[in-house]
Amino acid sequence: MSEVKKSDGKTESTLKRRQFISKTAVASAAMAASSTVMFPKVAISKNLKQLKMVTTWPKNFPGLGTSAQRIADHIKKLSEGKIDVKVYAAGELVGAFQAFDAVSNGDADMFHGAAYYWQGKSKAFNFFAAVPFGFTPQEMSAWLYYGGGQKLWDELCAQFNLKPFSCNNTGVQMGGWYNKEIQSLQDFQGLKMRMPGLGGEVLKEIGATAVSLPGGEIFQALQSGAIDATEWVGPWNDLAFGLHKAAKYYYYPGFHEPGTNIELTMNKDLWDSLDSNEKLLIESAVAHEYRMGTAEFNARNGDALVVLRDNYQVSVKRMSDDVLKALKSKSEYVV
Amino acid sequence: MSEVKKSDGKTESTLKRRQFISKTAVASAAMAASSTVMFPKVAISKNLKQLKMVTTWPKNFPGLGTSAQRIADHIKKLSEGKIDVKVYAAGELVGAFQAFDAVSNGDADMFHGAAYYWQGKSKAFNFFAAVPFGFTPQEMSAWLYYGGGQKLWDELCAQFNLKPFSCNNTGVQMGGWYNKEIQSLQDFQGLKMRMPGLGGEVLKEIGATAVSLPGGEIFQALQSGAIDATEWVGPWNDLAFGLHKAAKYYYYPGFHEPGTNIELTMNKDLWDSLDSNEKLLIESAVAHEYRMGTAEFNARNGDALVVLRDNYQVSVKRMSDDVLKALKSKSEYVV
Repeated sequence: MSEVKKSDGKTESTLKRRQFISKTAVASAAMAASSTVMFPKVAISKNLKQLKMVTTWPKNFPGLGTSAQRIADHIKKLSEGKIDVKVYAAGELVGAFQAFDAVSNGDADMFHGAAYYWQGKSKAFNFFAAVPFGFTPQEMSAWLYYGGGQKLWDELCAQFNLKPFSCNNTGVQMGGWYNKEIQSLQDFQGLKMRMPGLGGEVLKEIGATAVSLPGGEIFQALQSGAIDATEWVGPWNDLAFGLHKAAKYYYYPGFHEPGTNIELTMNKDLWDSLDSNEKLLIESAVAHEYRMGTAEFNARNGDALVVLRDNYQVSVKRMSDDVLKALKSKSEYVV
Repeated sequence: MSEVKKSDGKTESTLKRRQFISKTAVASAAMAASSTVMFPKVAISKNLKQLKMVTTWPKNFPGLGTSAQRIADHIKKLSEGKIDVKVYAAGELVGAFQAFDAVSNGDADMFHGAAYYWQGKSKAFNFFAAVPFGFTPQEMSAWLYYGGGQKLWDELCAQFNLKPFSCNNTGVQMGGWYNKEIQSLQDFQGLKMRMPGLGGEVLKEIGATAVSLPGGEIFQALQSGAIDATEWVGPWNDLAFGLHKAAKYYYYPGFHEPGTNIELTMNKDLWDSLDSNEKLLIESAVAHEYRMGTAEFNARNGDALVVLRDNYQVSVKRMSDDVLKALKSKSEYVV
């Protein structure tokens, strides 16, 4: 390796980044994406840009759909109407999990979602959403901006003609909704549970079946028995979906998501075509939403947990230390 | 009280806010300030605004002076040069602790500092910087934006012709630098320690002498023996001042500041005179810096702690549970 570094003058960190991406990216997916890249179909007239934001969330869903809408509103106001972003809920323009391809190929201009939904494109995407027993929100931001994380994310996304931004974070999530008590890893045997990303991979290791469903499909799946258990986000979001009507026990903490990064990701050709003021304006709107959105999650989750416990008699339970230790050991293996 | 509410139609929350402020504000200081309020001396020519930001920090001090400068740079870029903010270090235009009055009376347009420096104006200011065993950064933001905190802060500052914004947070601070071991509250007896805000009030309760010094004066005071001990911020900032050269033991955690809110506070007449786009632009720049600055503190503190421990053989020690419990009890009394 040292010869390689000397002969082509690459720095060690460049090499490490390349190794990171080459180890994790699914090359064929990247090639397929790059061969279909088209310049985004941005509507531009009289210096006005009309952009489409697709999302992986239901319309105005608390803290996620509303967060997407606030970014759009902020960009419009800050640009004095010159950049007009229209937000589409999951299913309005494309399905939740089609958001990535739609923006990659320019059918939409940006999407609002979470990177582990794209692990089928590359396992590396998990690291930019949440890792079991991994980063808290504060650690994620420290890594992205002062530990090289954003650079890795940019390189990974560039393979798909995308430019990503961190625009919110749910904070530590809850462990999820179950209709039976979880007293040991044995209780996960045969359980069919909704859990995306690497958390789902951990579930598979302990004998459960993990499924990834968009948020809007969870309640029905749980109520109909198509799944036995689910995690979603935290008290505020889970209450909004009424998950307490379909399951009895609410466990914490969410070992699988100690702080889930939410992304606003743009078509890279479009991003590159913007002038420096437009770029700064979008970055500022995104940072403003990060700040307000993370504060909102912390504030609303506390209130909602009290409602779930006191008004709906939900049984709020802590995973035992033994279960958490066993999950941590499996998580290290998976990661 | 209920008659009052009914007769003048005030809501309960309005009354609570007024009570909060009337209990804590120093009325004479408020009146003195309002009688000297002048319209800010903003230099305006050809639609360009040239504004002065005074700070309580040394020039480009890591994470604090640099954070102030980044806000100024961001405002200038985002406004395409129309709002040009010049940053003055402590002592360049006015002394660190004169920043409040300078902005209140319009000699400067905004200041970058921490609210507990103004507790001489009103004890209430402590609640917008840090409270012993109080809010973490996440809790502070949740309270400010979704728990009514910003509204209280606005009302308090309006009495002094000021409009405040939260623009950074140091995260949980370190307990400070000592030249003797702290094994019980007895060890604080007679100790002369630099500690601002309510933490300093707690020190007084346990027999120490608390002094509030601007950052730039700490090292000399500690080295000369004018003070026996000091806290400043965390490893990154403390290393920058070379505090390890003047004290032997570095204790954690900082019971007095579990997350210190840093403020950008503007002259209110100036703020009120801005149009909605200028206001949003400044709010966006501030939020962007909050996001980046808090990430930077988390990233740099970890690196700096390793340097202090490994390169400078600093003895990093944890306050014992007994000492922390005793401090907590005194803190509750003071708060």
